[in-house]
Amino acid sequence: MGLKRYSAAIIGATGYAGAEAIRLLQGHPQIEVTVATSERAAGEALRAHCPWLDADLILRAPDLATIQADVFFLCQEAGYALTHAPALAKRAKVVDLSADFRLKDPAEYTHTYGREHPGFEHPWTYGMPEVTGREAIRAAQLVANPGCFPTATLIALMPLVRAGIVQGVPIVDAKTGVSGAGRAKRETDHLLAELLDATKAYGLPRHRHEPEMEQLCGPVRFVPHLLPMSRGILATIHLDVAGPVRPVWEEAYAAEPFVRIVDAPPSTKQVRGTNRCDLFVSQTDSHATVIAVIDNLVKGAAGQAIQNANLMLGLPEAMGLPTHGVWP
Amino acid sequence: MGLKRYSAAIIGATGYAGAEAIRLLQGHPQIEVTVATSERAAGEALRAHCPWLDADLILRAPDLATIQADVFFLCQEAGYALTHAPALAKRAKVVDLSADFRLKDPAEYTHTYGREHPGFEHPWTYGMPEVTGREAIRAAQLVANPGCFPTATLIALMPLVRAGIVQGVPIVDAKTGVSGAGRAKRETDHLLAELLDATKAYGLPRHRHEPEMEQLCGPVRFVPHLLPMSRGILATIHLDVAGPVRPVWEEAYAAEPFVRIVDAPPSTKQVRGTNRCDLFVSQTDSHATVIAVIDNLVKGAAGQAIQNANLMLGLPEAMGLPTHGVWP
Amino acid sequence: MGLKRYSAAIIGATGYAGAEAIRLLQGHPQIEVTVATSERAAGEALRAHCPWLDADLILRAPDLATIQADVFFLCQEAGYALTHAPALAKRAKVVDLSADFRLKDPAEYTHTYGREHPGFEHPWTYGMPEVTGREAIRAAQLVANPGCFPTATLIALMPLVRAGIVQGVPIVDAKTGVSGAGRAKRETDHLLAELLDATKAYGLPRHRHEPEMEQLCGPVRFVPHLLPMSRGILATIHLDVAGPVRPVWEEAYAAEPFVRIVDAPPSTKQVRGTNRCDLFVSQTDSHATVIAVIDNLVKGAAGQAIQNANLMLGLPEAMGLPTHGVWP
Amino acid sequence: MGLKRYSAAIIGATGYAGAEAIRLLQGHPQIEVTVATSERAAGEALRAHCPWLDADLILRAPDLATIQADVFFLCQEAGYALTHAPALAKRAKVVDLSADFRLKDPAEYTHTYGREHPGFEHPWTYGMPEVTGREAIRAAQLVANPGCFPTATLIALMPLVRAGIVQGVPIVDAKTGVSGAGRAKRETDHLLAELLDATKAYGLPRHRHEPEMEQLCGPVRFVPHLLPMSRGILATIHLDVAGPVRPVWEEAYAAEPFVRIVDAPPSTKQVRGTNRCDLFVSQTDSHATVIAVIDNLVKGAAGQAIQNANLMLGLPEAMGLPTHGVWP
Repeated sequence: MGLKRYSAAIIGATGYAGAEAIRLLQGHPQIEVTVATSERAAGEALRAHCPWLDADLILRAPDLATIQADVFFLCQEAGYALTHAPALAKRAKVVDLSADFRLKDPAEYTHTYGREHPGFEHPWTYGMPEVTGREAIRAAQLVANPGCFPTATLIALMPLVRAGIVQGVPIVDAKTGVSGAGRAKRETDHLLAELLDATKAYGLPRHRHEPEMEQLCGPVRFVPHLLPMSRGILATIHLDVAGPVRPVWEEAYAAEPFVRIVDAPPSTKQVRGTNRCDLFVSQTDSHATVIAVIDNLVKGAAGQAIQNANLMLGLPEAMGLPTHGVWP
Repeated sequence: MGLKRYSAAIIGATGYAGAEAIRLLQGHPQIEVTVATSERAAGEALRAHCPWLDADLILRAPDLATIQADVFFLCQEAGYALTHAPALAKRAKVVDLSADFRLKDPAEYTHTYGREHPGFEHPWTYGMPEVTGREAIRAAQLVANPGCFPTATLIALMPLVRAGIVQGVPIVDAKTGVSGAGRAKRETDHLLAELLDATKAYGLPRHRHEPEMEQLCGPVRFVPHLLPMSRGILATIHLDVAGPVRPVWEEAYAAEPFVRIVDAPPSTKQVRGTNRCDLFVSQTDSHATVIAVIDNLVKGAAGQAIQNANLMLGLPEAMGLPTHGVWP
Repeated sequence: MGLKRYSAAIIGATGYAGAEAIRLLQGHPQIEVTVATSERAAGEALRAHCPWLDADLILRAPDLATIQADVFFLCQEAGYALTHAPALAKRAKVVDLSADFRLKDPAEYTHTYGREHPGFEHPWTYGMPEVTGREAIRAAQLVANPGCFPTATLIALMPLVRAGIVQGVPIVDAKTGVSGAGRAKRETDHLLAELLDATKAYGLPRHRHEPEMEQLCGPVRFVPHLLPMSRGILATIHLDVAGPVRPVWEEAYAAEPFVRIVDAPPSTKQVRGTNRCDLFVSQTDSHATVIAVIDNLVKGAAGQAIQNANLMLGLPEAMGLPTHGVWP
Repeated sequence: MGLKRYSAAIIGATGYAGAEAIRLLQGHPQIEVTVATSERAAGEALRAHCPWLDADLILRAPDLATIQADVFFLCQEAGYALTHAPALAKRAKVVDLSADFRLKDPAEYTHTYGREHPGFEHPWTYGMPEVTGREAIRAAQLVANPGCFPTATLIALMPLVRAGIVQGVPIVDAKTGVSGAGRAKRETDHLLAELLDATKAYGLPRHRHEPEMEQLCGPVRFVPHLLPMSRGILATIHLDVAGPVRPVWEEAYAAEPFVRIVDAPPSTKQVRGTNRCDLFVSQTDSHATVIAVIDNLVKGAAGQAIQNANLMLGLPEAMGLPTHGVWP
């Protein structure tokens, strides 16, 4: 008798996160993508828009009412899930990869995203297993998948916060590849000719991922930089601490399949294509330079979404998620 | 009852091809890497040298006599397999990723690689399943894994040669990422500062992959270019033909799991991390522009080696080999 | 007594070619940019849109009738010069960097650019000094500045064509950075995330620069490739010849300040920021691999435009044009 | 009567800084490169090693005693100038681009560079005109050209330090291209295949540029990152301040030709090829995010060296130094 198979619908399949979910699920033993949608390309072949995917799927319109699946991955722009996720979550597992359910405070959401939030009467949970624990995720019908910057930052910081050793306001100097901006957004800044061989800060004075971090770890100063990379986030966290960082991580993450404490400053490329978060610290007495690297499209998006889905479906949490990086 | 498991030894594990074999075998249901060797780093952890790999392997010295495995992947510099492969092939399956057994003619080998070839009294075969067929590979103890440029070129050209429609001498204008040069070779030309945002031809007047191609497809004019890419090969083949190209491919490759005929000029990135070869043709009467893309480290090295090993071990040919690309 | 000063107006100053003209003219002893225009940003500071330029110019609307200058550089999309250049050329020197006056045959223009051409009753000339000679340029009021691909290709090919040694149809396999597509065009293909670490062919079956080449050199087969570079063109020309290439070049270009015959395959980066075209040939009997590299924004656009303007104004042809490349 | 001409000798001409000095001096009205040396390539043409340079210079051995020039640019590895600069400075102006004379404290030098310093009995000065003033430079025979990281950092920080508004220890999170490591150093880390599409921190816990900064600005916490760029430094300085930053800069730098205060987060590319330092600040009450960008090979090396040489020779400080960037 074979393993039980679950069907997955990727809502917004031609963007980077949606397509990455399809790629990752190719290697998943128990979840199969049966539906892929696109608003603009319904009726066309997925591979016409994503030639890197070797799937025979024909894109469907996102008429959610007509789509059956065990789990839905919502990979749309912010605002979409606000409208559709609550109803959908009554009949299927839903992981929302947008920012719609990341903030607990509706006023903060409105302030950050410039849009009213219908409120939070329906149950949902924020799903970053290493930080939030698994219990609520396993029980949830609707999980908010965290942002990429918060994922790298909180995995590094939260054990330190909980151990009570963080002093003052940590500075999070983050470096990201451009795929975080999405595939549909075609800003001049994201053209190869503009960004190749160059870097710049952006999002100042307050990037919209800052409140998402702060609701868990307290105040930080967050400055993101755009790098000439397609994927990857490196968060350098400068902070004062009341004790050694590494033992705190070692205790917190001893059993985690996707967190690794490394002995040399990690490259973003060493986690490329994986669901890992590699952590490094260089500490001199009370000052620590903490570094976390993730692949923004895997642990920072589609991979963590599958990790959450595994928990929601009662599967082994790490199932189907690569931990060997694609290098060079 | 579980599936039968085979053990694999990666000889030369810290180079690009060896490490890529380890990465790919992470997802293989029936082959497990049990030994990884390094001449210079024996006794050290694999992940100290390849931090992208999440394996607990300790590198061993390449004392082949003491190493037991069902299949050996030889990922050493040219010359190594000449000495070691024949004896090894008496007790295990061997796939050699170097150039040592690619040329049938010892004199041509000596001319190309500047080294005597001890001769070819031991049996071996050249393994490019789509081109050479599977029979000899399935029966072989020692398989020569093809070069990256020949793989892209021959998959595109050989059906046309066999169909008798090639006229004159095809021109193969190839573009490659730098990982083809290997990780140990540290030429000024390969420094990021020299090559970023730049391209140049190299290997003129006669690159050493040219005889490997020509022994199968006849004379070609081959001009490789180094591109600011880490991975990927795009071969643009300009040729005169006596009939339409696409139907010939469609017939030859109808059942191939790793060859895809595409409708738009393919990007090298759409096969990144996969064992695919995507083919495209733009034809005007008797002149055709034929394009083939592969990942030089997968279909051009470690992936094709696993494909060959699958055949040698009696496993399904495509087992464990990704076909969805890593994009962006 | 100082040197005579000429004023220049850059029409379309915030695009790559217009801005590059401003950059290059910073070092020009006798031409000064006094006017820079932009349709969309009139009234704003040039440096707000082009922060790499250290000029205090305020962008003006392109109301040509109100703009006085000795020489106008038209850096607008195709179509603009058709309407404006003839009248303007009655009162000032005009160099048009668009494709509007590159083709001699109005029907070919219409076929290629999908737009009617009002005809060619006004005098103009195609200005590629090394190929067309200087006489007509010196006498012209309106010069059509050549396309980037034709510049690299024709400088390499025309001496061979004129020497009568070209046999058959040359194949021009060209590699280009993305800035050739312009700054205003924001295609998905040009996003860094899509193109970094990747390459693809485009423009098949017939790129619009092909007729521009063919009106001078006869039939060619032209296949351009988009590379992950911001600047630079490398044209690899595969051709059969009836005699040695290099002596023909040496004779043709002995006195040229911007053409250099080099002994090793040139990198696009070695001409970066310069008005040079470096040529290389690898020849075996009757087959030659010819390589030409230029900076598409300098010799392929703004630099050649200044070279033409120098001639039109009676200045030394090479005045103000760099020949040392920006490396790395 | 023409302008007086000065001769320059570039000692170590085939490295990045030496070659860049040659490039920049092509546009200099009064300094001409007459000698270029190389230890390993003496007797060969400069352009065989630096094909981007269009000079006819033949490389000479660095036999300083036989070389006559008005100004020497020493572009050798650390240690060379220790031995040769003092004697040379008795007969010519000398700008040393290495670290040999950057630190005032011989013990700190030995601690940082692992080499004895023969002491400082000969007069020399540290030359960063915007920070150190011009008086000592104008009078000096031997000027120590600052490091690239200290240049970006100190131009941003020193006015704030002098105004007494810096509170606590600033954090300098720096991002650099790889050319800072030099052309001769061929580390695996600097191979394109390793670094493309990736970033990592390095130099922890204490990079050797840190004491150079600290002798001027007091304690900082400095963490450099290697980016997939050939050129450029972006220093993000996180600090607490007792008052507004921007007015302090505006007063300090009102008359500086190479310092520009900009209104949007600057890209490293906007200063590419120029001698500029662009400054930006985003401030919220007592916390400031300060950003400085320079081209590490121009303002961070060869350009600042020419700026110093201009002062030493009594020429206008900005002579021959570009301020328009090379973009894209």
